[in-house]
Amino acid sequence: MSQFTHLDETGAARMVDVGAKEVTERVAIARAEVHMLPETLRLLREGGHKKGDVIAVARIAGIQGAKKCSDLIPLCHPLMLNSVKVDFEFDEASSAVAITGQCKVSGKTGVEMEALTAVSVAALTLYDMCKAIDRGMQIRNIGLVEKLGGKSGHWQREDGE
Amino acid sequence: MSQFTHLDETGAARMVDVGAKEVTERVAIARAEVHMLPETLRLLREGGHKKGDVIAVARIAGIQGAKKCSDLIPLCHPLMLNSVKVDFEFDEASSAVAITGQCKVSGKTGVEMEALTAVSVAALTLYDMCKAIDRGMQIRNIGLVEKLGGKSGHWQREDGE
Amino acid sequence: MSQFTHLDETGAARMVDVGAKEVTERVAIARAEVHMLPETLRLLREGGHKKGDVIAVARIAGIQGAKKCSDLIPLCHPLMLNSVKVDFEFDEASSAVAITGQCKVSGKTGVEMEALTAVSVAALTLYDMCKAIDRGMQIRNIGLVEKLGGKSGHWQREDGE
Amino acid sequence: MSQFTHLDETGAARMVDVGAKEVTERVAIARAEVHMLPETLRLLREGGHKKGDVIAVARIAGIQGAKKCSDLIPLCHPLMLNSVKVDFEFDEASSAVAITGQCKVSGKTGVEMEALTAVSVAALTLYDMCKAIDRGMQIRNIGLVEKLGGKSGHWQREDGE
Amino acid sequence: MSQFTHLDETGAARMVDVGAKEVTERVAIARAEVHMLPETLRLLREGGHKKGDVIAVARIAGIQGAKKCSDLIPLCHPLMLNSVKVDFEFDEASSAVAITGQCKVSGKTGVEMEALTAVSVAALTLYDMCKAIDRGMQIRNIGLVEKLGGKSGHWQREDGE
Amino acid sequence: MSQFTHLDETGAARMVDVGAKEVTERVAIARAEVHMLPETLRLLREGGHKKGDVIAVARIAGIQGAKKCSDLIPLCHPLMLNSVKVDFEFDEASSAVAITGQCKVSGKTGVEMEALTAVSVAALTLYDMCKAIDRGMQIRNIGLVEKLGGKSGHWQREDGE
Repeated sequence: MSQFTHLDETGAARMVDVGAKEVTERVAIARAEVHMLPETLRLLREGGHKKGDVIAVARIAGIQGAKKCSDLIPLCHPLMLNSVKVDFEFDEASSAVAITGQCKVSGKTGVEMEALTAVSVAALTLYDMCKAIDRGMQIRNIGLVEKLGGKSGHWQREDGE
Repeated sequence: MSQFTHLDETGAARMVDVGAKEVTERVAIARAEVHMLPETLRLLREGGHKKGDVIAVARIAGIQGAKKCSDLIPLCHPLMLNSVKVDFEFDEASSAVAITGQCKVSGKTGVEMEALTAVSVAALTLYDMCKAIDRGMQIRNIGLVEKLGGKSGHWQREDGE
Repeated sequence: MSQFTHLDETGAARMVDVGAKEVTERVAIARAEVHMLPETLRLLREGGHKKGDVIAVARIAGIQGAKKCSDLIPLCHPLMLNSVKVDFEFDEASSAVAITGQCKVSGKTGVEMEALTAVSVAALTLYDMCKAIDRGMQIRNIGLVEKLGGKSGHWQREDGE
Repeated sequence: MSQFTHLDETGAARMVDVGAKEVTERVAIARAEVHMLPETLRLLREGGHKKGDVIAVARIAGIQGAKKCSDLIPLCHPLMLNSVKVDFEFDEASSAVAITGQCKVSGKTGVEMEALTAVSVAALTLYDMCKAIDRGMQIRNIGLVEKLGGKSGHWQREDGE
Repeated sequence: MSQFTHLDETGAARMVDVGAKEVTERVAIARAEVHMLPETLRLLREGGHKKGDVIAVARIAGIQGAKKCSDLIPLCHPLMLNSVKVDFEFDEASSAVAITGQCKVSGKTGVEMEALTAVSVAALTLYDMCKAIDRGMQIRNIGLVEKLGGKSGHWQREDGE
Repeated sequence: MSQFTHLDETGAARMVDVGAKEVTERVAIARAEVHMLPETLRLLREGGHKKGDVIAVARIAGIQGAKKCSDLIPLCHPLMLNSVKVDFEFDEASSAVAITGQCKVSGKTGVEMEALTAVSVAALTLYDMCKAIDRGMQIRNIGLVEKLGGKSGHWQREDGE
């Protein structure tokens, strides 16, 4: 058998059969950073009420993105998310916005891809809204932070990874 | 007027009016890197014919992702892409796969978001197909490389940016 | 905590966590009215076989709309509908078509939004098909009629509401 | 020929052929009202910064809804919107939120349905976010306010209509 | 260069660049047959008014399917259809329903795939609605009938093909 | 009651209520053939590594198509597929590519439509990628091969059907 679970023994892609897997409570947390010019971050921060919509739009885009995951990632299973949360933190030291996404499901497959899609789409939306003033922005370090549930159990990114 | 083009003077989000913009030929090139364990990269590389599907699946996901851009990014305009290309390069030195996406359109708005969405979705798909063997993979340095066309003209990321 | 369940204590939007909720049989019935000129209603009514497609198209649009609910309404949970029915009644007295939509699910969240989306999309479709002859048509009184199941139990709109 | 432009002479539905129509600048403005308890309106109003997300979420849903119009309304043509704006006004006298949506396109067909879909989806989203505290809310008087462009030219809803 | 226009010289899939192609009026007509038991065909035929919805539903599904073409077929370009028509003919001699789909566009690429998708989705919908009484139904001979416009000009299926 | 389960007693379409149905393991296998010129089949076959992407693209399109089934077929229920597999076989004798699709679900409704949609979309994608060299290709004999699970139990296409 192939070491890639999404390929069969001939190398053909397939949606892995999860029929025999147990339904368990599953949680995944992912993270992304949007690096920008200090001036761009300042504009985002000090906007207060008036600029509130930038973060609100990115948040909604992230939540909607999590729901579109199985439409975007070809071998992902459709699933019924129990919850999605997307949070933003301003990090002046590194001139970046850190985005955290958490997804939960009672299901047969994990929600890592949903959480990763949420933070990726939220980050792309932030880029879209700021690109007229800062085209060189970069999205960095999209990765899984933690996962719970399922056969592989608890996994947590180690420091410095 | 707000410095954020996607917000009106009250801070409310809107889809910018491009009605008065000229239709020009527009190109955008974006880039992303998927960093992984050397062993994961080796498995992807040496698979040859048999593993061919992993890259093919990620490529298709990226192309389809570009077409879904205005559905994912709330304030993006729908547009009719003339072409989408997604390419992959194995970089053993940094144990990563580099993904390049190029989009073209004859239109009133640029295709930066389409190119960025293409490489992001391709990268997420690569993560999905390898996650069972390397959960700590990270997507890094998603950014615009170059854009042509439109009022703002040619833009290119400078070295070391 | 916020009184709006879709906002957390900081006012940020989120998809409410329904993980701890019980799976129960849930039903929701919604209603909408499309008000039009008497002549438009007459054309719809007397078409018989030949005009049958107008109502059939609106019905299908409503059913499909219910299935798209979680894609349209940002904080709605995806769910697997057990059934959708959309019915039309000609009301000559008020020169309107009344639309009723019923959705059912065995799930952790209610189907109010699915039923409301069904009648709204059916109403918009009716408008679309008649707008060339009656641009001033209005969709009125979209509201929930009744819901069953879930923690909040039975709810029914009172007369005259 | 049928008086319903979306039906052919046998009564069968079709997407009307717009091939011979001219590309003109087209604008449509639509309106909807969400009627609620005075207490619900007060909560929405006085939230200030913290409740800002409720309106922001409804606005984004409306804009995204406009882009999904041809997917929702079976006989609508796909088109490339130049702009979408969705605005909200608190009307204490009638204890309602009034929603206005404006869409523009350079195209062969009008954007009435896009504007109507925008305000309908924004209204449904507002309902969704307030339904836990006010299930009896109603969406009323969804209708076209004004349209410009195209062969039929300028149209405006008359007072009292 | 590869003989497959959708593959580059390395065999990688791509969305062909149509930027240099001219915008012309393009038409494509496709056809499919749904073969069934004579009794199933009889039920469809004699239903008259009451069974009208079966064909109406299949027709709408076909029209909507044409609009989803670029979402379904990975390397298809998004385009703005000018018109879609789907027609049904009962063929008692071969106990089948023949479906014809016609699509038109003013664009840089043809609409063959849109017409083929329209008849395929209409045929699948017919199958869906009759499968409880005739599971062995088959969809046969989906093919292009005629195309006009574009560089390759007029093409017509020859008799007996 | 109507003999068509998707129509109520008045002939109106509806999504059948599956609320009272049991959740069982369900499997469906469908099949389609893409007939082409011998030269086209030879090009597909002998491409080896370089042409690998043609089949890979069609396979992914088929898998994604299965997931879009309830969006394409108006009265299909949304469901959470446990697995999707799409396989291709070159049949030189009849100058065709045979496509087999298998879908599984733990659910209240069968997955026949999902399997049929998978092979149909895979076949259309194959057509799309080869149409520049062989416009006369035909998709033939799309049909169910076998189904298991649910109240109607096991069904298998008989030889020569």
